Amino acid sequence: METATLGQVKKTIHELDALFKPRSIAIIGASQKDLSIGNVIIKNLLHYGYTGKIYPINPKVDEIRGLKAYQTIFDVPDNIDLAHVIIPAKFVPQVIKECGEKGIKAVIINSAGFSEMGEEGVALQTEFLAIANEYGIRVFGPNCQGIINTDPQYKAYCDFTFTFPKPGNVSIVALSGGVGAFIMQSLFDLDIGMRLYASNGNACDVSISDVIKYYGDDDSTKAIILYTEGLSNPLEFMEVAKSVTKKKPILAMKAGRTEEGAKAAASHTGSLAGVDISTELIFEKTGILAFNNEEELCQVAMAFAAQPIPNGNRVGIITNTGGPAVIATDELVNSGLQLPPLSEKAKAVLQQAMLPEATIGNPIDVVATGGGQHFRSALDVLMDEDQIDSIYINFVTAPFTDTEDVARNIVEVSQLKKKPIICNFMTNMSLERFHETARILKDGGVPCYSFPTTAAKALGALYRYSKIRSREIGSPESFPEVNSKVAGAILTQAKKEGKSYLAADRVYELLAAYGIPVAKWWLANDVEEAENAAGNIGYPVVLKAESSAIVHKSDMGGVVINLKSAKEVKEAGNRMKDKFGDKNLKFLVQKFMPGGKELIAGVSTKPGLGHLVMFGLGGIYVEVLKDVVFKIAPVTQLEASEMLSSIKAAKLLDGVRGEKGINKEMIIEIIQRVSKLVTDFPMITEMDMNPIIAVNDKVFVVDARIKID
Amino acid sequence: METATLGQVKKTIHELDALFKPRSIAIIGASQKDLSIGNVIIKNLLHYGYTGKIYPINPKVDEIRGLKAYQTIFDVPDNIDLAHVIIPAKFVPQVIKECGEKGIKAVIINSAGFSEMGEEGVALQTEFLAIANEYGIRVFGPNCQGIINTDPQYKAYCDFTFTFPKPGNVSIVALSGGVGAFIMQSLFDLDIGMRLYASNGNACDVSISDVIKYYGDDDSTKAIILYTEGLSNPLEFMEVAKSVTKKKPILAMKAGRTEEGAKAAASHTGSLAGVDISTELIFEKTGILAFNNEEELCQVAMAFAAQPIPNGNRVGIITNTGGPAVIATDELVNSGLQLPPLSEKAKAVLQQAMLPEATIGNPIDVVATGGGQHFRSALDVLMDEDQIDSIYINFVTAPFTDTEDVARNIVEVSQLKKKPIICNFMTNMSLERFHETARILKDGGVPCYSFPTTAAKALGALYRYSKIRSREIGSPESFPEVNSKVAGAILTQAKKEGKSYLAADRVYELLAAYGIPVAKWWLANDVEEAENAAGNIGYPVVLKAESSAIVHKSDMGGVVINLKSAKEVKEAGNRMKDKFGDKNLKFLVQKFMPGGKELIAGVSTKPGLGHLVMFGLGGIYVEVLKDVVFKIAPVTQLEASEMLSSIKAAKLLDGVRGEKGINKEMIIEIIQRVSKLVTDFPMITEMDMNPIIAVNDKVFVVDARIKID
Repeated sequence: METATLGQVKKTIHELDALFKPRSIAIIGASQKDLSIGNVIIKNLLHYGYTGKIYPINPKVDEIRGLKAYQTIFDVPDNIDLAHVIIPAKFVPQVIKECGEKGIKAVIINSAGFSEMGEEGVALQTEFLAIANEYGIRVFGPNCQGIINTDPQYKAYCDFTFTFPKPGNVSIVALSGGVGAFIMQSLFDLDIGMRLYASNGNACDVSISDVIKYYGDDDSTKAIILYTEGLSNPLEFMEVAKSVTKKKPILAMKAGRTEEGAKAAASHTGSLAGVDISTELIFEKTGILAFNNEEELCQVAMAFAAQPIPNGNRVGIITNTGGPAVIATDELVNSGLQLPPLSEKAKAVLQQAMLPEATIGNPIDVVATGGGQHFRSALDVLMDEDQIDSIYINFVTAPFTDTEDVARNIVEVSQLKKKPIICNFMTNMSLERFHETARILKDGGVPCYSFPTTAAKALGALYRYSKIRSREIGSPESFPEVNSKVAGAILTQAKKEGKSYLAADRVYELLAAYGIPVAKWWLANDVEEAENAAGNIGYPVVLKAESSAIVHKSDMGGVVINLKSAKEVKEAGNRMKDKFGDKNLKFLVQKFMPGGKELIAGVSTKPGLGHLVMFGLGGIYVEVLKDVVFKIAPVTQLEASEMLSSIKAAKLLDGVRGEKGINKEMIIEIIQRVSKLVTDFPMITEMDMNPIIAVNDKVFVVDARIKID
Repeated sequence: METATLGQVKKTIHELDALFKPRSIAIIGASQKDLSIGNVIIKNLLHYGYTGKIYPINPKVDEIRGLKAYQTIFDVPDNIDLAHVIIPAKFVPQVIKECGEKGIKAVIINSAGFSEMGEEGVALQTEFLAIANEYGIRVFGPNCQGIINTDPQYKAYCDFTFTFPKPGNVSIVALSGGVGAFIMQSLFDLDIGMRLYASNGNACDVSISDVIKYYGDDDSTKAIILYTEGLSNPLEFMEVAKSVTKKKPILAMKAGRTEEGAKAAASHTGSLAGVDISTELIFEKTGILAFNNEEELCQVAMAFAAQPIPNGNRVGIITNTGGPAVIATDELVNSGLQLPPLSEKAKAVLQQAMLPEATIGNPIDVVATGGGQHFRSALDVLMDEDQIDSIYINFVTAPFTDTEDVARNIVEVSQLKKKPIICNFMTNMSLERFHETARILKDGGVPCYSFPTTAAKALGALYRYSKIRSREIGSPESFPEVNSKVAGAILTQAKKEGKSYLAADRVYELLAAYGIPVAKWWLANDVEEAENAAGNIGYPVVLKAESSAIVHKSDMGGVVINLKSAKEVKEAGNRMKDKFGDKNLKFLVQKFMPGGKELIAGVSTKPGLGHLVMFGLGGIYVEVLKDVVFKIAPVTQLEASEMLSSIKAAKLLDGVRGEKGINKEMIIEIIQRVSKLVTDFPMITEMDMNPIIAVNDKVFVVDARIKID
């Protein structure tokens, strides 16, 4: 990004401006054939009122849709910012070269036949991309729809779809053109203005992250809608998303959440896909508002487009009908909102202002016969109430009230932009007399819904974003005292020895180097040493056969717990020697800690993303109830504590039936230290600490496995 | 109901026909004032084309909206089927009397000022209802909207709302006029035809159950929508609902599911309400399709209005765009549907029929350039596939295809009514050229949605109903061997003694009488007897101080477990005698069973409904995780087994970590026997069996409490 001075105005020039703000567009592969893409795009540009110059390129014709056509781009007597490429795949590399020579800065390749079509296509894509890089051309696509910029300065409809959005402040990005198009259509149907649109298909160069960064820098974009089926460069995406969500909300949906859905995604994008949880984790970590329902996402966008973000979760309800307030209350409460009682002062004001049939409370029922001044009094009161952060309105257009006056009063208060107002507007739009009422509300920026639950969900989403925006996950702790030198040596040595799993003693040493508490242990070379070690460690102890040849030690009788004396240790040791027929069997002797709570933590790796850290309650909770949570490393203190509070059985950590809770601070620290360990040493691909025992205010790792690569 | 013969046609005359099929309507309280209810109803009847006679009643004017007005109903020279009553509450009793004298069979009382307004209103309501009963008048309301019958034979718009529905086969019933009206509006907006509408306000006579029964008997009603905030007569409702859901689906929403929502409901209906789970349980028991989102409910109704019910959960997807198929797949799978692979035969047919770019699989991607014949081939193939029960279509109107031809082909296949077809139709309705496409689909009865998730949810609901309809919960087991005589004697005796809780020995005797296995026990009068009893029962035993004076026995040291010898029993018994300072302390000696799985079961009572039976895993599962399920008594074998499988930790019942599963059959039987016990003896208001221990393939109740009233 560079900054240039245009007269008095300091203006930021972005490297994607040629794409989103083109002053001139060449259509390479322009066609006279109706309904062909090379014709539709020109038609769309003209129809939408593109303010720049359009240059159809076609060697065989002189004119397309009234515009002079040129044989080649070199015949165009002008600079060209952007070129649409709509020609067979095999000719694309040559055309990109010509674009470079012409000095074109961005191309949209609508043509298909590239990475989505197997090896040959991949080769072609690689070829043209190399040429583009050489000339510094940004490539959008291939196999894509294009972009739309609704800004009256540009009106650039570089797309072959058929919805002509009104200008606004919501921007859309979606790899999938099908989904992008129906989201745009939905905003159009909901009368929500759109700012920018981008559907980049194979996304060989300009990525989702590039687009989101651009939207983030675009002051006129107030909210971003993202649809994705996976992320090709998660780390880049995270960096961009983290900075953008602090400025404006990103509402996102990730599809392919089920195995079958992921399979369907793979079949249409050609990408390798599988059910992954990492996109959801990325959304969470970067503060993206996630949705599982695209209709809800679009409806919610209407609220973000026009209303401020609430400062808290306390909502006041105004209604002129009973049942819908009940429905709304249910959903608001489910969304985490509260309905505080009104202050005595507020009630006194309302007693004076309302009709006698009205209900003074929260909800405030102004009743169906209530008019503009009744709604207004209720609105003014809620705006004044310190303990109210947002306002929900049910407004049914009773035939015997001046509904336009009600609408005007709602708009006047809404335009103070002090607290968000959401309106469930129940009317019959096929009746002329309610059109004007609807128009007043919509033009006044009041988001109108047709169902109480839908309206309540929208307010719930505003509140959800208010929490996300104010959530400071902080930076990972540095733990300066960890001994990364020792850890590094252990790992390098194991790698050198060609091991994929570290030996047990190495595991414990590694954990100790990172300050992760381990139950006292000793690696004994024989039974006698084990007896001595047990005495030093203190009874009871666990005895484990230490041999990489024995898999599933527990099942094979290679682990004996709760040994209470030297005699028991000796007997157990000798039995194991017999059992495994190994006279030189070594033993791991470890402190046994009965009666504690079993916890587990672990690490896995996601290609392109890094490590995921896992935490859960051990035993049946993980095995049967799958009650575990994940976070992307590095994990901060806040995130680690969220892991403890977000398992389903979180209450068990506080102790039940009179028992003492576990030492949560210690677990939170262990999670962070594990996170630091794997972040410092990416060669660790898997860790499994199971069980971790929390007992008597202490926490110890009792068994652990570490895999390296 | 009686049957009369009209010429050749045998016709059923229903006692609510006067309400829903009136041949003549009097408007008592008719008014010349625009926007007054007494004027709007006449306007609506005229506007909607009511086919019967309208008699405005107003002593002061001669004519209203061009109709002759009468001073009193006695001046009307005709029989009157139905009267609207729109006069101040205090005059209503007198008017009902006059209606009786005139021979009117049904009245809709729109006026408010009755039970919703406190004591005086209740008295007035009681007064007019007595008069109505005397004359055999059915009363609808008061404080209500009214009814609508869209049947062209009647066109009875007896309501003051402002939506004029097109005739169809979905009927609506809602106490709340506000909610009823916006549901009607939503069907209108979605272009779904409506059959009957009823919003009965205070519902002093004609109840929700009466209306649902009427809709059930109405052959032209194909699906019923119900909104409620609670049920006044749950048993009556259950009986009606059970029979109607076998004939047609009831889609229902219950609001007031949160404490705050229930409070809001109470404030607008004046009813005593609280969060209750019983309405949801009633829906489940009677086979009603429950919704938590009224927008989803309305959208789903579109599918029920036009499509058959699938025979199973196997769906085939046809799409002409990639992303939306991914989204749909996710939601279909979440709704319990499966996407089976296509047969080899089907694939071979499609290889021939599809475009080369098409994807042959499930989903079938006919690609955006696919036309009518490609959609048709895919549809024909899926109709022929034995392993496909339903079809989901994504249809985006690509500008370069003959979308009308696609629509015609979808309609032709849909009209075979062989398998349900749901269509996600993504288009821009503001463009003229797609209007006709939409019209073809809608007129052809193909339910069209604008979002893949929404369409998928609709198909999911059809499947949900197919399961409900085929679910035979059966009749409760009779258990002829139970000794109800002994049980009755125990209960009568306790009642006579003025007890609210049965003594421990009585509890165990009662359970035994109903064949509910109890851990061996003995009530010992002193320590010595306890020692002997322990010997007979077999060690280890539990010793419990048996005294109604000692509450929270466990906490007070009144329970000692795992006593392994006569000596230990003696010591424990003596300690308790000291502790409680009671030389004559009695003891309950009971078999102690360590190592088993703790379960709980219980019973509570809901006014007007009867008993709810509860089951769950004991210990922390109930205390911390609240993992329990309820069913309404009497509980059948299927329901009892559903209770076991529907707790969250159900897998634990099968045994984990190599341990044996519990004896589920025995638990299922215990639940049914408990259900029979409380059904036989309604005086039992609470039961608490905690714990029930499942150990070694046996199950025993170890501790129980029974409350009577």
